[in-house]
Amino acid sequence: MYLTRSEYDRGVNTFSPEGRLFQVEYAIEAIKLGSTAVGIQTKEGSVLAVEKRLTSPLLDPNSVEKIAEIDSHIGAAMSGLVADAKTLVDHARVEAQNHRFTYDEPIGVEPLTQAVCDLALSFGEGSDGDSSKRMSRPFGVALLLAGYDDLEGSQLYFSDPSGTFVRYKAKAIGAGSEGAQSNLEESYSESMTLKEAEELALSTLKQVMEEKISTDNIELARATPDKGFHIATPDEVALVLDRLSG
Amino acid sequence: MYLTRSEYDRGVNTFSPEGRLFQVEYAIEAIKLGSTAVGIQTKEGSVLAVEKRLTSPLLDPNSVEKIAEIDSHIGAAMSGLVADAKTLVDHARVEAQNHRFTYDEPIGVEPLTQAVCDLALSFGEGSDGDSSKRMSRPFGVALLLAGYDDLEGSQLYFSDPSGTFVRYKAKAIGAGSEGAQSNLEESYSESMTLKEAEELALSTLKQVMEEKISTDNIELARATPDKGFHIATPDEVALVLDRLSG
Amino acid sequence: MYLTRSEYDRGVNTFSPEGRLFQVEYAIEAIKLGSTAVGIQTKEGSVLAVEKRLTSPLLDPNSVEKIAEIDSHIGAAMSGLVADAKTLVDHARVEAQNHRFTYDEPIGVEPLTQAVCDLALSFGEGSDGDSSKRMSRPFGVALLLAGYDDLEGSQLYFSDPSGTFVRYKAKAIGAGSEGAQSNLEESYSESMTLKEAEELALSTLKQVMEEKISTDNIELARATPDKGFHIATPDEVALVLDRLSG
Amino acid sequence: MYLTRSEYDRGVNTFSPEGRLFQVEYAIEAIKLGSTAVGIQTKEGSVLAVEKRLTSPLLDPNSVEKIAEIDSHIGAAMSGLVADAKTLVDHARVEAQNHRFTYDEPIGVEPLTQAVCDLALSFGEGSDGDSSKRMSRPFGVALLLAGYDDLEGSQLYFSDPSGTFVRYKAKAIGAGSEGAQSNLEESYSESMTLKEAEELALSTLKQVMEEKISTDNIELARATPDKGFHIATPDEVALVLDRLSG
Amino acid sequence: MYLTRSEYDRGVNTFSPEGRLFQVEYAIEAIKLGSTAVGIQTKEGSVLAVEKRLTSPLLDPNSVEKIAEIDSHIGAAMSGLVADAKTLVDHARVEAQNHRFTYDEPIGVEPLTQAVCDLALSFGEGSDGDSSKRMSRPFGVALLLAGYDDLEGSQLYFSDPSGTFVRYKAKAIGAGSEGAQSNLEESYSESMTLKEAEELALSTLKQVMEEKISTDNIELARATPDKGFHIATPDEVALVLDRLSG
Amino acid sequence: MYLTRSEYDRGVNTFSPEGRLFQVEYAIEAIKLGSTAVGIQTKEGSVLAVEKRLTSPLLDPNSVEKIAEIDSHIGAAMSGLVADAKTLVDHARVEAQNHRFTYDEPIGVEPLTQAVCDLALSFGEGSDGDSSKRMSRPFGVALLLAGYDDLEGSQLYFSDPSGTFVRYKAKAIGAGSEGAQSNLEESYSESMTLKEAEELALSTLKQVMEEKISTDNIELARATPDKGFHIATPDEVALVLDRLSG
Amino acid sequence: MYLTRSEYDRGVNTFSPEGRLFQVEYAIEAIKLGSTAVGIQTKEGSVLAVEKRLTSPLLDPNSVEKIAEIDSHIGAAMSGLVADAKTLVDHARVEAQNHRFTYDEPIGVEPLTQAVCDLALSFGEGSDGDSSKRMSRPFGVALLLAGYDDLEGSQLYFSDPSGTFVRYKAKAIGAGSEGAQSNLEESYSESMTLKEAEELALSTLKQVMEEKISTDNIELARATPDKGFHIATPDEVALVLDRLSG
Repeated sequence: MYLTRSEYDRGVNTFSPEGRLFQVEYAIEAIKLGSTAVGIQTKEGSVLAVEKRLTSPLLDPNSVEKIAEIDSHIGAAMSGLVADAKTLVDHARVEAQNHRFTYDEPIGVEPLTQAVCDLALSFGEGSDGDSSKRMSRPFGVALLLAGYDDLEGSQLYFSDPSGTFVRYKAKAIGAGSEGAQSNLEESYSESMTLKEAEELALSTLKQVMEEKISTDNIELARATPDKGFHIATPDEVALVLDRLSG
Repeated sequence: MYLTRSEYDRGVNTFSPEGRLFQVEYAIEAIKLGSTAVGIQTKEGSVLAVEKRLTSPLLDPNSVEKIAEIDSHIGAAMSGLVADAKTLVDHARVEAQNHRFTYDEPIGVEPLTQAVCDLALSFGEGSDGDSSKRMSRPFGVALLLAGYDDLEGSQLYFSDPSGTFVRYKAKAIGAGSEGAQSNLEESYSESMTLKEAEELALSTLKQVMEEKISTDNIELARATPDKGFHIATPDEVALVLDRLSG
Repeated sequence: MYLTRSEYDRGVNTFSPEGRLFQVEYAIEAIKLGSTAVGIQTKEGSVLAVEKRLTSPLLDPNSVEKIAEIDSHIGAAMSGLVADAKTLVDHARVEAQNHRFTYDEPIGVEPLTQAVCDLALSFGEGSDGDSSKRMSRPFGVALLLAGYDDLEGSQLYFSDPSGTFVRYKAKAIGAGSEGAQSNLEESYSESMTLKEAEELALSTLKQVMEEKISTDNIELARATPDKGFHIATPDEVALVLDRLSG
Repeated sequence: MYLTRSEYDRGVNTFSPEGRLFQVEYAIEAIKLGSTAVGIQTKEGSVLAVEKRLTSPLLDPNSVEKIAEIDSHIGAAMSGLVADAKTLVDHARVEAQNHRFTYDEPIGVEPLTQAVCDLALSFGEGSDGDSSKRMSRPFGVALLLAGYDDLEGSQLYFSDPSGTFVRYKAKAIGAGSEGAQSNLEESYSESMTLKEAEELALSTLKQVMEEKISTDNIELARATPDKGFHIATPDEVALVLDRLSG
Repeated sequence: MYLTRSEYDRGVNTFSPEGRLFQVEYAIEAIKLGSTAVGIQTKEGSVLAVEKRLTSPLLDPNSVEKIAEIDSHIGAAMSGLVADAKTLVDHARVEAQNHRFTYDEPIGVEPLTQAVCDLALSFGEGSDGDSSKRMSRPFGVALLLAGYDDLEGSQLYFSDPSGTFVRYKAKAIGAGSEGAQSNLEESYSESMTLKEAEELALSTLKQVMEEKISTDNIELARATPDKGFHIATPDEVALVLDRLSG
Repeated sequence: MYLTRSEYDRGVNTFSPEGRLFQVEYAIEAIKLGSTAVGIQTKEGSVLAVEKRLTSPLLDPNSVEKIAEIDSHIGAAMSGLVADAKTLVDHARVEAQNHRFTYDEPIGVEPLTQAVCDLALSFGEGSDGDSSKRMSRPFGVALLLAGYDDLEGSQLYFSDPSGTFVRYKAKAIGAGSEGAQSNLEESYSESMTLKEAEELALSTLKQVMEEKISTDNIELARATPDKGFHIATPDEVALVLDRLSG
Repeated sequence: MYLTRSEYDRGVNTFSPEGRLFQVEYAIEAIKLGSTAVGIQTKEGSVLAVEKRLTSPLLDPNSVEKIAEIDSHIGAAMSGLVADAKTLVDHARVEAQNHRFTYDEPIGVEPLTQAVCDLALSFGEGSDGDSSKRMSRPFGVALLLAGYDDLEGSQLYFSDPSGTFVRYKAKAIGAGSEGAQSNLEESYSESMTLKEAEELALSTLKQVMEEKISTDNIELARATPDKGFHIATPDEVALVLDRLSG
């Protein structure tokens, strides 16, 4: 029932009588139309897994990238508007390199997540020196950021269009997030190995995907202290899928 | 009944025929959707306590920060839009450091609160040198600022989206503020010790929270003349909870 | 009956078919929602008195400031939006100091009032060098300015959101202004002493206030040739209240 | 009947289908709400007279200024929005002084009136170097400018919100202008002395004023070749009032 | 029937579904409310004649100027909004002087008309160096420009709010233009003398004016190769009126 | 049926749900209200012919110019809003001269057409260095550009308000374009001589014009390799008309 | 059924309650009105083929260019608004040349596609240094980019108005894309030769075109490692058409 809402929900940055910002809530809806993504943090490292929707058999699955490396130790899985996500990821990459250049050390996972959210919050505002990245509407994308730093170890963050972020042990976003999150809450254990986390991530995706899971229609990545952020090759994905069905 | 209102309440900065600014009133509504926060001032120091809402057992409670240190002697509890609160807190931190740099002394609690309100009032205005912090809508957040300075001793201030602030002996904000404020008015005494204030703060939260109070779903902080602003560790929170149930 | 009005009253600076500027009229309504303030001019000096509304017993009455010193010889009582009033008062203070710096003498009461009104009139206009103070809506505040200068002696000015000001011998503004002004017109005499004026101011407030008058819920100030502008201490207020009931 | 009008009359600078600019017409309505002013030109000099509305007996009549000196040889009577009039008068004063500074002679009455109208016409336009004086709506004020210059002798000009001006032998503006103008047309004669013009001006005001005419509620001014522009003192006004009733 | 129109006709510069620009058409309507003006070109020179509407017997007819000299060899008669016309005439005068200064010769009549139309066309556009003259709506005025240059001899141009101009042998504009133009088409002959043209101009005005024609309520001007542009004195007008009735 | 359209067709640059830009389509309608123009390309050169609408017998036909020379080798015929066409033609002239100045050779016909279309496309966009020529609405004009260059020989281009252009062998635009284009498609032959093309152009106009064709109400121009662009004199037009009726 | 949609779909960059950006979706509709284009990638190289709509037999088919060379090794086929496509292609050309100038090597196909999409995404945003290319609405055009680079070999990318791009083995866009894509999915094989791809491209177009396919109403291009990007001459097109019917 959008009748009384309709008066308030078009203003990009206007409160409704109940104190709500509808454009931000609608941007969050955009994520519910996106492909499902799952992130799991263990003591050994974090795992990201994403569904890819292949609308045509002639589409090259490799060109649909839903997981992106931000720095050698941090990466992100995305759900929602792909082009918006690229803007946030590009911004995150610059922030990470700036940190390395200024302090000669990798940026922490939380400061990086904060930098992404600062940009996400700034939609609809006046211009300043970095205005080229600002949007006239909220970013229609949610990110799962997985990484490692010496201070906090392996970490998994979730950021949404309102510019807020929180840390999760395991989190699902996108069209199938409701079922996926339930599955994660049932099966997650803090003592999981990274291998078990990979299996949980893919079995969770498997449950919510409409198409049969294969190396073509999912992406998988790990962030570990020793090897940094690594997007799995099709062969590596196949190994995990084998373990699932094995 | 929003019928006659609806003509006026979308203009960010337009008076209604009764002389009201609806967008500011709606932003105040946003705070009533936020988690409850409580502040109490005693002669020994001030106490801040906030409820945390944990929407999933996999969410890391430590990443939900509802109390923030502004300077070593001042901190703030927030209710409403988290991302808006971060902007105000960042602004307050810069003001506090500028004061230290310029005058070589800590900023007073009231001037700091005034600086936060100056920013809150400036929404919807034209740009100037500091335009990057200005918003096109009111900030949807209320703050309880607790701190100590030599001039006025321990102080507790409440600021709201209209850019006004007042000093309180004890104040509750957020979803459960109505019941919480009644409780504070019944139980507050000017002669309270800091320990008693901590107990009153947590027993007040306990009454209005839907979930069972625990070290995971609340935050507690103290601002005292000798130790400055200090956010309690989970162990310190547990001690107060023990005293409550003891 | 707002039916035909509704077409015109949202434009910040648009005439209605009857030649009226509704946004300015609505801002004047905002003052009728404010707390009552009273000003009285005598030959010995001027008096300002304001009601404070204390919404909670835990609110610190001293932090609700409705009378502000502008320069050592001029002050203002305000009714309406507090945050708007602070902007006008800050502007007035800068004007007063600029005058002292440029001419090495205190600014006159009327030129200062004119400077406040120039700012009040400029809402909704294009930006210039001093744009940071301009508003996109009328200021929702009325001021009573009381002061002394060598040219005109003790003076009392009233300024409203339309940017006009007039001099009064005695004037009441705010929620109870209608009854208060009648009382002033009945009881005012040009030959009043400053003491009598203080008593008339407080007895006028007493009549229109819903709560019982006390040193906590009113503010009182004097502007005299010899002592300049002085906000009364609680003890000084108590003395006048004693004389009233005595 | 504002039904078909209502589509066009809110645009500040938009033509209606009949080729009318409603905002300018509405600004002209604002003048019909203003106090009545009368101007009369004779060979000896010109006279301006204005009604003052005193809404309270405690209001200081001297602070209600409806006639302003622009230069030593020119002045203006105003009707409509007082604050708008002040902006126009300030602009006229600067133009007059600039002329004196540049050409070392007093500005002519017509060029000065033209300068006022240039500003009045520029509402709603883009900004340029002098943008601080431009308005986003028409000026809601009419002026009667009376003065003397060597080229044209004594002159009386009338300017309105559309930015047009014409010269009159005698002209009334404001709430009572209709009756007042009829009276002027009946009684005016080109051979009038200045004294007779003063009497005609005040007797005209007397007819249209609701309150009893007195030295308190009117203003009177003369512009003569020898004494320049002079606002009459209360005693001088009293002398003319005596002649009227005498 | 403005029903389907009403959707399009408020946009200053928006096409209707039929490809029309209503604001320009409405500005043309503004001219139909204006006083009638007539222009006639002969081989000896051109004639301009305009009706003046005198709304009060106390109005000075000389201050109502409907014909303006642009340069010593060119002038314009105007119908529509007087203040808009003044802006166009001022612009034309500057263009004419710039031409003289740059090329040391008088500007041609057509280039001058083109310069006026360039300004008329630029309403509603972005700002550039000469933005102070641009309007946010079409100019509500039509001009008849009469002049002489060596290249083309005596010429008469007509410009309208759409920024177009054409050359006419004889043209009428304003409220009475329909009847006046018919009269011109019946009576005009290319072999007319200047004297006959003056008589035709005034007899045409006489037919369409509501008031009795007199030296007070019309203006007359000639542009001839030998004497340049000359606005007739009341005596010269009287001579022509005598010939009409003679 | 404009009911569902009406929601989308006022946005200058907004897509309708069917992916259409209505303002551009409406601008194209403006051309259908314009006078008919015809262009024909032969191997010997190109021909342009335009109808002139003479609304009064006193209007000077020579001042209605519907064909304009852009450079000595290129010209354009226009249909639609005359003032818009002049802006495009002026822009084209500058581009042509810039090319000559920079490369010391005449600009090609296609690059010139592209330059005109670049300007036509830029309506409604943000400003840059050349913003003074940009429009806030589409240009309501279509052009037929005829010219010669060494690369492509004789050419005829058609540009419309959407900023697109295509090359035609023969093309009609304006009110009578439908019938005229049919006539051209029937009678055009690639082996036509320039003389035959002139006759076809005028006979095509003759068919669609409401008034009798004469040297007064049409314009004719040729663009040939040897003589460049040449607008025919009335005598030259008469010769072609004679051949038509002969 | 656009009833509830209509509230949201005019905002250029506003989310609907379902999280959709209607203006982008409508721009995608604009492409469905465009002419059909087909791209096929083989190991030997890529093929682009486009239908041309010839609305008149007098239109010169060569001036309707639907395939454009971007650099010697990359080209694009377009469907949708032609003028928008030209802006994107111009931008791509500059990016390609900048890359050559900076790195002394041809730009990769994917980075070039990304650069096109960066521009496509930036509509409706604030201005920066390159603002002259930004649009106030989404670009109403889809591109098929075909090219070769050493890293990835022959590639085919598809970009749409949302600023996203994916790699395809074979892809159809425009009015006939649905049938054409089905045909491609049936007939495409990864082992195709370039010759077979050309035949498949043209036979696919043939199926969906309303008019009979000929060398006049289609365009064909190849991007191969050895010969780079090459738009086929009419003779080369004829050869392929012969093979089809042979």
